Order: sequence, then C-alpha cells, then structure tokens
Amino acid sequence: MRISRVSEQSAVPVTTLKYYLREGLVHEGVRLSGNQTDYDQTHVQRVRLVRALLDTGGLSVAAAKRVLSTLDAEPEAIATTFEAAQHAMATGRATGEPSEASRRRIAELASARGWRTSPENPGLDLAARVLDDFSAIDFAPSDGYLGAYAAAAELVARADLSALRDREDPALIAELMVIGTVVGDTLAAGLRRLAHQDATADLFPVPDPIHRQEPS
Amino acid sequence: MRISRVSEQSAVPVTTLKYYLREGLVHEGVRLSGNQTDYDQTHVQRVRLVRALLDTGGLSVAAAKRVLSTLDAEPEAIATTFEAAQHAMATGRATGEPSEASRRRIAELASARGWRTSPENPGLDLAARVLDDFSAIDFAPSDGYLGAYAAAAELVARADLSALRDREDPALIAELMVIGTVVGDTLAAGLRRLAHQDATADLFPVPDPIHRQEPS
Repeated sequence: MRISRVSEQSAVPVTTLKYYLREGLVHEGVRLSGNQTDYDQTHVQRVRLVRALLDTGGLSVAAAKRVLSTLDAEPEAIATTFEAAQHAMATGRATGEPSEASRRRIAELASARGWRTSPENPGLDLAARVLDDFSAIDFAPSDGYLGAYAAAAELVARADLSALRDREDPALIAELMVIGTVVGDTLAAGLRRLAHQDATADLFPVPDPIHRQEPS
Repeated sequence: MRISRVSEQSAVPVTTLKYYLREGLVHEGVRLSGNQTDYDQTHVQRVRLVRALLDTGGLSVAAAKRVLSTLDAEPEAIATTFEAAQHAMATGRATGEPSEASRRRIAELASARGWRTSPENPGLDLAARVLDDFSAIDFAPSDGYLGAYAAAAELVARADLSALRDREDPALIAELMVIGTVVGDTLAAGLRRLAHQDATADLFPVPDPIHRQEPS
C-alpha cells in the first residue's frame, strides 16, 4: 500500500509518518520503480505502537527507540523481555539518585509483600525518589499509605500478566507487554483522578451553596 | 538567607534556582542594598515543590506554573482546589480526543463502582485514550482487567485522601494534594514495575538454565 493508505489506517499524518521513518522508529518500506515505496500491514501496526508510546506513554523518541529495540530483538523468555523493556522505559525519566533510606524503605515494602524482585528493577529507584519528594514537603507516608499503594500495584500487575497469558503469538505478547507497561501507567493515573473526585466528595464535602447564600 | 544557602538546603544548583526565578516558578526575594537579595524558608520550600513537579512528576514548566497558580490562589474548598490542580496537570499530557466508545466504557466503569465523578474530570479522557491505544494493538481489555485497575485506583485514592485529612494547615493540605497527585502516579508506576517482576516469575517462569544445558 502507499504511505497515504498507512496514514489513513493509522490516523497519523503523512508528515509524521515520514518523521517516524527518518528517526528509524518504523521500518522502511520496499522501494518500487520510480518514486514509489510499498508498505504493508506491519507498518500500520508499528505506527500505532509508536504513536501510543510517544503520545499516551509520553516517551521521548530516544526512549521509544530503546523500547522498540527490545521488541525487535530475538524473542527471549517473557521475564527477560519484560525486564529489558522496563529498563528502556525507566531511563530518561530518571533524574538523580534517590536516598539510601528511601531505597531501603521501598525494598522492605516489597519484601513485606513477599515480592521476588531484583535490586536492579527500575521501579525501586522510581518509587524511592517519590519518598524523597515527600520528605522534601515534610510528608512522612505511613506504612498503611505505602501498603495501599503496594496492594494496588499487585492488583494491576496480576491483571496485566493474566492478559498477557491469554495471547498465544510471542510477538503479540511482547507488543502488549511493552504497550501495557507504558500506557498502563496512564490508565492507572486516569482512574486515580476519577477515584480522587469520588473520595474527595466523602472526605471533604463542598459547602452547600444554598446554605451559604441564604443564612437563616 | 543568600541564594547559595537556598541552593544548599534544597539541593538545587544556583543556576537552576535563577532559572526558576526568571520563569516565575519561585517568588522573588527581598532586594537588599547593593547586589544582595534576601531569601527565606518559603523559598526553600517552593524550590523543593518545583523540583518535584518538574523532575519526579515530569511536568513541563508551563504545566508546573499552572499547578502552582492553583496553590497560590485564594484557598477554596478542598474539592475545588483538587479539581483545578487536576485540570492544570492534565493539559499538556492530552493529545487528541479519545473515541466516544472509550469514553463511555470508562464512564460505565466509574459508575459501576458507584463513583461520583463529573464528565469534565480529566481522568476520563486520560483513561479513554489508553483504551483507544489498546484497540490499536487489538487488545480488548476484559471487564475483569479494567475492574482490577479501578479497584486499585480506589485503594490509592482513599489512602491519598486519608493522608490529606491528617494535616491541619490548609496551605500544607493543598501542597500535599498537588504533589501527591503528580508524584503519586510515579509511586504507583514504580511499585507496579516491582509487582510485575514478581507476577512474571509466577506466570512466565524463566527456563531453568541447568536443565537447558544438560538435557538428560
């Protein structure tokens, strides 16, 4: 198919497609005679993937490239691909080392729940830096607070892995794993905002305007 | 105190502090005679806040400004400040309208859990766009999958709101609310990666290298 057809099917403008091709985010098409290049369904699929990584996932082009290269590499054990994708995504977001105390607290939280994790898991530093930010504003999260976050993480991680298990083609599993890791954070963030609104209504009710305007 | 002291106490370099001041992210100090400007503890506090929004939260300078302006505005009911902060944060991340079908599915998910939310809540579009990304890679999330994410969101939102309720000073409540909304996403993302590693070990065990190398 022509590039204009890829554009239609992926809902991504041709100029953006050309940018993806130049950046090596999408594989080249097959050169035909003259100025024509032929693309196929694998291009449409890849363009959608790139779009999700950049837009919904908010990754930089460099980070998206690293993530895609883990997908394109020799298929390995799922656990290995997962780890590689996580690392590719964590770089770029990371700024500065978290404190040792915060790293330790997160490691303890994980082991209290019986999680088998490695010290190299990028989630450890990501979460530890948040604890540092909290302490900068003098917020000391209780064990109950962190426990709620850990329980929530467990719920979504199990749902993610079950969804993976339902797929059979290793390429599709890898694709969902990568997309799921990146945009799953956004799904969690979106639902958290909705749940905040509900919880706020309970805990901090808005003053009733009628009572304010017409005092008895 | 001098700017070098603010730098020490906030662990942010002086050149970065000057950038924050120029961008209006941090309020000016008091001009003393000559070239001297006097800063105080409120500057240190604000610098840490800005740092958390930009680095851990990954906000753009423009988004951070919008978030800070909701903090600096007249203190209102908690629910109103929360909403304003959520909107300020959601803009910038948003790209393109989600499909009506996805918006409807998220709205149904929220109402199935009895959440009281408004159609303007930015979480609705954020989550709906993820569903669109999923359908682009032919992943149709089950009700159980989305239900797990919603249950997790409820857990963390209740923990967030309880933490707010423990603070008394309205300025500190607003500060935690804003920081918590932004960096709480990162805490959830970090723990999700740790939980993924654990869940992967169960569902997709890495082949045992000894058995692979020495077949019997």
